[in-house]
Amino acid sequence: MFLDDIAHYVPAEAVPNSYFATVNGLSDEWINTRTGIKTRSRAAVGENTNTMAIEAVRRLHTDVTDVDLIVAASYTPHDTVATIAHVVQREFSIENAAAVFISSACSSLINAIEIVEGYFAMGKASKALVIAAEHNWAFSNESDEKSGHLWGDGASALVLSKNKNAASKAEILDIYTRGLAHVGQGPEGVYLTPHKEGLMMPNGRDVFINAITYMEEALFTVLDRNQLTSDELDYVIPHQANQRIINNLANRMNKVNGTILSNIDRLGNTGCASTAICLSENLETIYKPGVTVGLTVFGGGYSSGALLLKFL
Amino acid sequence: MFLDDIAHYVPAEAVPNSYFATVNGLSDEWINTRTGIKTRSRAAVGENTNTMAIEAVRRLHTDVTDVDLIVAASYTPHDTVATIAHVVQREFSIENAAAVFISSACSSLINAIEIVEGYFAMGKASKALVIAAEHNWAFSNESDEKSGHLWGDGASALVLSKNKNAASKAEILDIYTRGLAHVGQGPEGVYLTPHKEGLMMPNGRDVFINAITYMEEALFTVLDRNQLTSDELDYVIPHQANQRIINNLANRMNKVNGTILSNIDRLGNTGCASTAICLSENLETIYKPGVTVGLTVFGGGYSSGALLLKFL
Repeated sequence: MFLDDIAHYVPAEAVPNSYFATVNGLSDEWINTRTGIKTRSRAAVGENTNTMAIEAVRRLHTDVTDVDLIVAASYTPHDTVATIAHVVQREFSIENAAAVFISSACSSLINAIEIVEGYFAMGKASKALVIAAEHNWAFSNESDEKSGHLWGDGASALVLSKNKNAASKAEILDIYTRGLAHVGQGPEGVYLTPHKEGLMMPNGRDVFINAITYMEEALFTVLDRNQLTSDELDYVIPHQANQRIINNLANRMNKVNGTILSNIDRLGNTGCASTAICLSENLETIYKPGVTVGLTVFGGGYSSGALLLKFL
Repeated sequence: MFLDDIAHYVPAEAVPNSYFATVNGLSDEWINTRTGIKTRSRAAVGENTNTMAIEAVRRLHTDVTDVDLIVAASYTPHDTVATIAHVVQREFSIENAAAVFISSACSSLINAIEIVEGYFAMGKASKALVIAAEHNWAFSNESDEKSGHLWGDGASALVLSKNKNAASKAEILDIYTRGLAHVGQGPEGVYLTPHKEGLMMPNGRDVFINAITYMEEALFTVLDRNQLTSDELDYVIPHQANQRIINNLANRMNKVNGTILSNIDRLGNTGCASTAICLSENLETIYKPGVTVGLTVFGGGYSSGALLLKFL
């Protein structure tokens, strides 16, 4: 399968660490040292996962009216019935498509692309729109000192084709996903009860350890399956949960600065949209035929996933 | 693909129509005449989509520890991070499975099974657990006179295999899903903003008309693709939204009483779990080798889908 187009939308507001001094009692230095976050994106009043998703799709350079599959991912849905997939279908007058919304927390982007891979394999679709959007500020509790300061908002949209075509930018060489609820604290590590407590991360240490372990495992799984070494991988884009997790992963993958990409300092943790936003932001800089990129993700629940692509 | 096992869980409490006389001002006769509902299931305090899903899986007669894919569906999720798929994975010690949560509103069950079909086609899974669970009472507004009286709670679990085996009860002949957000009121017809208004159906008339039209279209799509006529279909299980929709569909499909199955009188609208609960409830009665069953669904957003199975 092929990646034909990618775009992203990040809300204009960047909330600095200083905002949290009086909100959850954490200082700029404390937050920056422990997470690498300096500012985080925040949706404006009236914005939500549905509106941000539409905005991301609008920024694509592809006519999406003829896609035959829409898979949208989020754990912070504005609407679980009139989902992102449905409002995008309506907004862009897409008349012949299957449409579904998914969540596997912060790892959902890779699950969404794997679902597309399945529709392509069945011959039930040949051009798909994948959207990842998060509105963390709508569900997080900013006064929670364990996680209130971590979250950002944003969306990304990808166009995928079964067959290579004039627009194709990259071939997706492999996709891997894994449910990891049996590991560590599993479903107790991070949770989001939308009508109760919202988004909470009571067991950050357990998330930290397992995120490193299983982002590495996922990425090596796709590398091994494609007879590639870590050294042959040009860029790694990990889920943007914490710069220390990213640095730890960089050490394990033997990646130097500049080859493991990050936007957490500016955007915070933008959930399942984070790797796609990061790829979209860096595309012009890193694009070169033959260059390989590995996405690797870890999500609450827990779940992991990795994707390997090669630019055409 | 094959259906090996199915089970369901419905909470014990059955709320009678008389409950609504003082709550949203509708009488038993008014509700019964317009919807066919006499009672609706209601989850107890402490129950939610995650607990009901676990209960449904527990009622299966299959060892699920070796499933390699878990797809869980709901538009009323207790948790969008520690999803149904994840808590089931942990509860039943499933160590080697992809896990994902989905919603396409009331049509999600068929989307979930189609996603499994994709994993089977790719060779990425061969034994899957599909769970559909709804906790409508957690998100609906009982005082809303347009829809407060419609909703029920419940869950169902299915075991699907790529290859026929000793446990296989039915072959799934075909699956069809379609996003219909471009039709009628689309995303305005029904919505569920989990942190705002909850579950609302402001445009019931539009839902009613399109549910009939597109449940018929979906079912005829799978019948036509399998060279079957409506007369050759032994049973129809439509989404349980309204007995008048079901009766209307029965007329269009030329189905007499007893061949179009229903549980809405007892359970209300149990969302994406409704057809699976109905199939599970009726399995012993209708099971006979060679018998064909068509499931057809319509969901908010809008979406539709149909599934054709033949008992072995």
